[in-house]
Amino acid sequence: MTDELKAVRSGMETMVRQAQVNICSALEALDGGRFHEDRWERPGGGGGISRILQDGRVFEKAGVNVSVVHGELPEQAARAMGGGKALGRDDLDFYAAGISLVIHPRNPMAPTAHANYRFFQRGAGKKNGSWWFGGGSDLTPAYLFEEDNVHFHRELRAACDETDLSYYPRFKTWCDQYFYLPHRGECRGVGGIFFDDLHDRPAADLLRFAERCAAAFVPSFIPLVERRMDMAFTPDQKRWQQLRRGRYVEFNLVYDRGTLFGLKTSGRTESILMSLPLTARWEYDAQPDAGSEEAKLLAVLREPREWV
Amino acid sequence: MTDELKAVRSGMETMVRQAQVNICSALEALDGGRFHEDRWERPGGGGGISRILQDGRVFEKAGVNVSVVHGELPEQAARAMGGGKALGRDDLDFYAAGISLVIHPRNPMAPTAHANYRFFQRGAGKKNGSWWFGGGSDLTPAYLFEEDNVHFHRELRAACDETDLSYYPRFKTWCDQYFYLPHRGECRGVGGIFFDDLHDRPAADLLRFAERCAAAFVPSFIPLVERRMDMAFTPDQKRWQQLRRGRYVEFNLVYDRGTLFGLKTSGRTESILMSLPLTARWEYDAQPDAGSEEAKLLAVLREPREWV
Repeated sequence: MTDELKAVRSGMETMVRQAQVNICSALEALDGGRFHEDRWERPGGGGGISRILQDGRVFEKAGVNVSVVHGELPEQAARAMGGGKALGRDDLDFYAAGISLVIHPRNPMAPTAHANYRFFQRGAGKKNGSWWFGGGSDLTPAYLFEEDNVHFHRELRAACDETDLSYYPRFKTWCDQYFYLPHRGECRGVGGIFFDDLHDRPAADLLRFAERCAAAFVPSFIPLVERRMDMAFTPDQKRWQQLRRGRYVEFNLVYDRGTLFGLKTSGRTESILMSLPLTARWEYDAQPDAGSEEAKLLAVLREPREWV
Repeated sequence: MTDELKAVRSGMETMVRQAQVNICSALEALDGGRFHEDRWERPGGGGGISRILQDGRVFEKAGVNVSVVHGELPEQAARAMGGGKALGRDDLDFYAAGISLVIHPRNPMAPTAHANYRFFQRGAGKKNGSWWFGGGSDLTPAYLFEEDNVHFHRELRAACDETDLSYYPRFKTWCDQYFYLPHRGECRGVGGIFFDDLHDRPAADLLRFAERCAAAFVPSFIPLVERRMDMAFTPDQKRWQQLRRGRYVEFNLVYDRGTLFGLKTSGRTESILMSLPLTARWEYDAQPDAGSEEAKLLAVLREPREWV
């Protein structure tokens, strides 16, 4: 392994641990509750820290995970993991360090947010494409507040622009395409950024990019929760939020690659499924009234917009 | 197509339509509410009737679907459908008739039940394995009432034994294996019967078998609901039911072949996802107290029992 990759691994570990502390602190300050923490070890190598705040004043469920894992992958898992085009049987060694979080606020006017930044390496990391970054951040509101979506996207664009002006437009489109439920004809939310298999710049540059993105999470999201967390809402609006949470579950369990990869390769189930909301609802053929606020959200989910 | 297969198709259509009427009537009699009915057509051929009772006095959600569909499958869907080992490009024609139902009672002492019986044909149905029956019925309680599980299995065994004494033991084991969540190390429920790709007897005999199984649904399940639907329960017991419903969602969205096949081949989403409960819950790392009723259920889900 090159000295550069060694430094990137070490920098990524430091970054994800620090981001976990910072994000949890910001959420605790808003909620008043405290995160519960579990430290776990992976039998094959490495481990993680799962932090969860459940049934809080502001947050119905907030999970912030970090993991730094390594070892040898079963061949099938190695293929599913990607980065494997040029790799042979001697490249089953893997290393992955990342942070992953999903925040479900209680108030239906406050959006759900997800973010996830990770670094992967296969084998010695010397072959082209044998190390890469992945991740992104996206917003899933139950009600549409245009200024919130603009704010969220603007913060992410700023983080992207510092590294590469082509990143935000590419990763915004990728996000809309990735977080899409074909069986509903809907995006999961109003998007953000998504990228995978990213190795088009030196690893040290991309580490800086991941750091900027992770640092953007608190300023991109916390102000939205502050604006919305004490708004009045009706039981029907809560019900609509619950139906949207059902869609969130559908995406994560049917399509999300990270979730399925984790569940099918014996990852730590409780940490993987921390992303699911505390409560969700499925009604048969629930359709919002034409012209309603709920219908306005659906229109945007069916035809993604440019926000910045 | 042979005259026998023509008669089996016609008999299956009559059976599933009649079973839908009978089962819905029995559920309405218990609940006092009425099923909502949607008739739909499949663009490529055929259609179905979806009946749903939602937010009733006894049933939180009950869906009973029939569909009789036919046409030409995309090659990938044909392969995923099974029965394709001996089939070539000229066998993309398919026919499927079935009934599928999931009943989620409101009271946490009353179990969820699922049943599903279907007949498939590919091509002209003349090649060995180009027609088959699939289906089964299984019970998912949140609390363990041994006599309920014994009653449910006894009724199914009687329906099996009339056709073939080997069926119940084979299909009971198959059910335990099929309705299993590897990432939880748990079966979905206390089982029942499950079979697929069944063509080991003349089609007319297997139609009689499917008829007997479908006719067993009301007597296997309704008495259990009658016993449990008015039992007292605590908020904690309701919460446990909601957590178990979360597991039900996990199974259906991550593993259930019929659900995934339907979603990924543009089936009618609302009819496919009728199986999901009205409400579900995911708490981080919820573990029942040792020796509790909840722990007793988990022990059985982790090590399936013989009930009859």
